[in-house]
Amino acid sequence: MAVRGAGINNADLAQRAGQYPAPPGWPQDIPGMDLAGEVVGVGRQVTLFAPGDRIMAVVGGGAQATLARVDESHALAVPDDLSWPEAGGFPEVFTTAYDALFTQAGLRMGERVVVSGAAGGVGTAGVQLAAAAGAIVTATVRDASRRDAVAALGASAVLEPGHEGDGGPYDVVLELVGAPSVEAVLPHLATGARVVVIGVGGGAQVDLNLFSLMGTRARIGGSTLRGRSRSEKADVAAAMAAHVVPALAAGRIRVPVCETFPLSEAQAAYDRFAEGAKLGKVVLVDASA
Amino acid sequence: MAVRGAGINNADLAQRAGQYPAPPGWPQDIPGMDLAGEVVGVGRQVTLFAPGDRIMAVVGGGAQATLARVDESHALAVPDDLSWPEAGGFPEVFTTAYDALFTQAGLRMGERVVVSGAAGGVGTAGVQLAAAAGAIVTATVRDASRRDAVAALGASAVLEPGHEGDGGPYDVVLELVGAPSVEAVLPHLATGARVVVIGVGGGAQVDLNLFSLMGTRARIGGSTLRGRSRSEKADVAAAMAAHVVPALAAGRIRVPVCETFPLSEAQAAYDRFAEGAKLGKVVLVDASA
Repeated sequence: MAVRGAGINNADLAQRAGQYPAPPGWPQDIPGMDLAGEVVGVGRQVTLFAPGDRIMAVVGGGAQATLARVDESHALAVPDDLSWPEAGGFPEVFTTAYDALFTQAGLRMGERVVVSGAAGGVGTAGVQLAAAAGAIVTATVRDASRRDAVAALGASAVLEPGHEGDGGPYDVVLELVGAPSVEAVLPHLATGARVVVIGVGGGAQVDLNLFSLMGTRARIGGSTLRGRSRSEKADVAAAMAAHVVPALAAGRIRVPVCETFPLSEAQAAYDRFAEGAKLGKVVLVDASA
Repeated sequence: MAVRGAGINNADLAQRAGQYPAPPGWPQDIPGMDLAGEVVGVGRQVTLFAPGDRIMAVVGGGAQATLARVDESHALAVPDDLSWPEAGGFPEVFTTAYDALFTQAGLRMGERVVVSGAAGGVGTAGVQLAAAAGAIVTATVRDASRRDAVAALGASAVLEPGHEGDGGPYDVVLELVGAPSVEAVLPHLATGARVVVIGVGGGAQVDLNLFSLMGTRARIGGSTLRGRSRSEKADVAAAMAAHVVPALAAGRIRVPVCETFPLSEAQAAYDRFAEGAKLGKVVLVDASA
């Protein structure tokens, strides 16, 4: 496929720092896990897509390029009204948030969910998805200047980290910060609560009291997408096609894009991403398209 | 109902020590969560059982008595071939083990499970239930003299605590000891593993690395039965009637009874229970029956 948009994610910075290599079988020296573009050629057994189709996908690496190869079972059709930057910024964060909230944690309508670190890419996706599914969403956001924007995504309360007790008790926790945030939310879990840890940038080591889990029947788990098998990733993509792409096509969720850069200015794009204090994706685009 | 057998459980010792009061609505001064006996009278709306029926149940308290009252939705029919001591020692430990392994952890055939502290009441139940469901069972048992007996219950490996790495990787952990055992098993979890903590006699505080949970998509949870609502307990009893009582009636699982005492010698029974180094239940019986 010809890549038209490729979002930057935290994992790319970790990979650039040598901490998060691409899994075996993926380009080791071209970063990028997120892409959208046009099909320019297909293998003989491909039946789902044809040249000219607009597709998007999560890949194990190599997305920030002009050409990329994608397994058809991992590709999603891009809704007609979606721009390339939006499509290129969609797959990784929405797939991560959907898988964590619904597949791992089993979030259902009417439940209370807290998204910690909600102003980031997975956070803005998670707030929208949880609200779209009828959950009651609390968000924690460190940067006060971004709280209104997170509320506008569907959070009914946006709190300063450490004030988790002002909401809850929570049925589901989408944990994007790590240890300090987990320890702050543990006293505010509902019976049967599910905590899913997706990011530990704020620290990985927690002091956990097992007895407190027994009383609430709560559970704490973690998840990543990148290391999963090809068939597991196909299952994840099928769930996205069934449950999330229709909401995206209908405009019920949207991909906030902060800024785009041509691929040739990737360094500037990485610098912008690393600066933080943004709401929405930084996406590399094909300036020729 | 007229109580004919009432097992002693760890919770009774905790309650006697003032650490684990009966929930509201249950006798506060008569211990016992486990009973079997004959129906001697029923309320007007009771349809499932009639006087003379043999029933057994988990109750919130008051089991170690001559008479007790049980919600019909919490009662199970006692299989014909089961003795009163066996029936009186069955409900609490098998219900706890079944709920943890199957309802909380979703154990399926062919999976590898480790039962930590497998020589105790819930442990001997858990080993048998997991084996009966086609799982591959590893047990840890501190007391070397009881390892053969645990193997005879269906464990394919019986290990000294701290040697969990000789089995596994484990899909499910039934944790009956607590912190040291959890920390020993964490490096040996399979992808998607489920750890259910039911006992923390060995310590409750663990040092947990969230990042390690992310890579394996493992989760750690806890559970207790006693504090659940009446309808939740009815759901648990219905699952036991459907899935466990048939195996008990067919002789595929059995209730090991270590020793019985008449109710009048309850103190001696508690002393025997507290001694440990037993395999099987200590059950109070009605000497007049």
